Amino acid sequence: MATVSTPLLKDELDIVIPTIRNLDFLEMWRPFFQPYHLIIVQDGDPSKTIKVPAGFDYELYNRNDINKILGPKANCISFKDSACRCFGYMVSKKKYIFTIDDDCFVAKDPSGKDINALEQHIKNLLSPSTPFFFNTLYDPYRDGADFVRGYPFSLREGVPTAVSHGLWLNIPDYDAPTQLVKPLERNTRYVDAVLTIPKGTLFPMCGMNLAFDRELIGPAMYFGLMGEGQPIGRYDDMWAGWCIKVICDHLGLGVKTGLPYIYHSKASNPFTNLRKEYKGIFWQEEIIPFFQSAVLPKECTTVQQCYRELAKQVKDKLSKLDPYFDKLADAMITWIEAWDELNPSQAKLPNGKAK
Amino acid sequence: MATVSTPLLKDELDIVIPTIRNLDFLEMWRPFFQPYHLIIVQDGDPSKTIKVPAGFDYELYNRNDINKILGPKANCISFKDSACRCFGYMVSKKKYIFTIDDDCFVAKDPSGKDINALEQHIKNLLSPSTPFFFNTLYDPYRDGADFVRGYPFSLREGVPTAVSHGLWLNIPDYDAPTQLVKPLERNTRYVDAVLTIPKGTLFPMCGMNLAFDRELIGPAMYFGLMGEGQPIGRYDDMWAGWCIKVICDHLGLGVKTGLPYIYHSKASNPFTNLRKEYKGIFWQEEIIPFFQSAVLPKECTTVQQCYRELAKQVKDKLSKLDPYFDKLADAMITWIEAWDELNPSQAKLPNGKAK
Repeated sequence: MATVSTPLLKDELDIVIPTIRNLDFLEMWRPFFQPYHLIIVQDGDPSKTIKVPAGFDYELYNRNDINKILGPKANCISFKDSACRCFGYMVSKKKYIFTIDDDCFVAKDPSGKDINALEQHIKNLLSPSTPFFFNTLYDPYRDGADFVRGYPFSLREGVPTAVSHGLWLNIPDYDAPTQLVKPLERNTRYVDAVLTIPKGTLFPMCGMNLAFDRELIGPAMYFGLMGEGQPIGRYDDMWAGWCIKVICDHLGLGVKTGLPYIYHSKASNPFTNLRKEYKGIFWQEEIIPFFQSAVLPKECTTVQQCYRELAKQVKDKLSKLDPYFDKLADAMITWIEAWDELNPSQAKLPNGKAK
Repeated sequence: MATVSTPLLKDELDIVIPTIRNLDFLEMWRPFFQPYHLIIVQDGDPSKTIKVPAGFDYELYNRNDINKILGPKANCISFKDSACRCFGYMVSKKKYIFTIDDDCFVAKDPSGKDINALEQHIKNLLSPSTPFFFNTLYDPYRDGADFVRGYPFSLREGVPTAVSHGLWLNIPDYDAPTQLVKPLERNTRYVDAVLTIPKGTLFPMCGMNLAFDRELIGPAMYFGLMGEGQPIGRYDDMWAGWCIKVICDHLGLGVKTGLPYIYHSKASNPFTNLRKEYKGIFWQEEIIPFFQSAVLPKECTTVQQCYRELAKQVKDKLSKLDPYFDKLADAMITWIEAWDELNPSQAKLPNGKAK
């Protein structure tokens, strides 16, 4: 297929960073990030100051800012957890978001060259996805690739891509039990592929290195209730991943995974992680079948409608698992209301095509 | 996850080759193939002699042999088409089959080392598949990989792998229109990944470099009616791919794609291919939705039962497309009858677990 040239989208993309504890982080990314606007959402104590090196164009929100902007609706935004990053998605006015953690550095490709992760995400987002049939040579829109024999011609146009999920070299994104069992495992395998996650298939979406089209899927990119006062952590991106995949499948939008890689520099503490995760480890055994069988009615033709419907189903079907899900379902509604307040012109647009 | 050591399975695997026009073929593969038994199914004029270099253990079947062994049932085996290779699957007495075309040579990995395709296929077949949830680091059973955060623990045992679909460097497996439009395209991208094709997702299965577990899925690996006297060609492997995927999904078996690569040395003639393919190009637009929505009843717990049921649905739903499908549905039944005659002990075994 014809390949896509890669504009930088300088005026159309914001970089959202949950917090910056590491001053090297922005210095390392400077050649790639400096052209863009940064939205930093401080995840902890608002009295602490985050230092941003000179030369970056940024806005920074701490908890006091979030409370001021959202008022009582601020309770849908997590506190003392990187899940608060989704506030940045909401206040952005751009079409695209790239979000990255502050322990993720520039990775090198097998030739030793620095990987421009953002450029690859943009390529992924600007080229279509192919969720309805698997292409064995992976992304058919890349240079040197195409649809293979037996791929239906009617499906070769693809569908718009809503999400680009990038991967991690060095420290893999493992749960606490796997971290404990394999403390020394490092991901050194550079898999030179981008692929569409097929329709009907869920995946574990990691928020470390993630880009998406706000206009297509932004209102569903809610990272849930984590951190202080909540019974779990480290499921913020997973929750968003389940929700966006079900909605993308319903609306005929694509989700890609694979390139680009970032270099994940340090593993978080597995003991702390176990404490945050252990309820999620039980719950996901019920939550995933719930999302796998969730059906959205045809009448839901906007992300907002889909998301409200999903919140309703969460309340109906997951509240019996734990009262937390009742609260989470309410927070999902609060989130959508807040999103629509901050993005009034977007609220009524149909996204994608209902299937 | 714990990785699988790779036995060579010398007494448990047959290599099936549809025909050998190229004497270099076996010489090139000698270090890898000589330990195994070869089954050569001659696809054309039975009066011609296929020369097999000394040192190989093989049996060779031409059309006369097929007619003698199968009697009137021989009409389910294609003539003058490499689809006849499936006769080799039927007469094999081994647990595993590797099938390869005679224009496929040994490929090199990025370090310049010869790829032992067979060894990788065996690895793929002996390690489980993960069809129910996508793992973003691909095959979790490979060295240096595992299930990522958010992957349900209840699914980490995986399911038995029935099929390992390998890829091709150099000449990609394109249809005639793509060949005509991109005559110079070569696949040079070595993607170091093996992945399970998720449940519910179909893929274009290519027969050039393919391995499978005969005991788990053999009776569904029928390459249809192609070649002389038939209205299409080059859909033999596609047909088998659609059938096996639907049946694997139903029985809870896995299908993997990715490594190993072979080096596909020459493109077949795109004009000839267009003549063979053009009806398939129309028909696949109807056939694929048919297979995508095919449901097998719970009572079908063996591959044979599934395959007979699928044949019935083909007759019911695809015959209106062309009388060819009526004939094909009959041939599917003949194939299963012939399979059971030649493999009486296997006929009654349940395969996998019905879902």
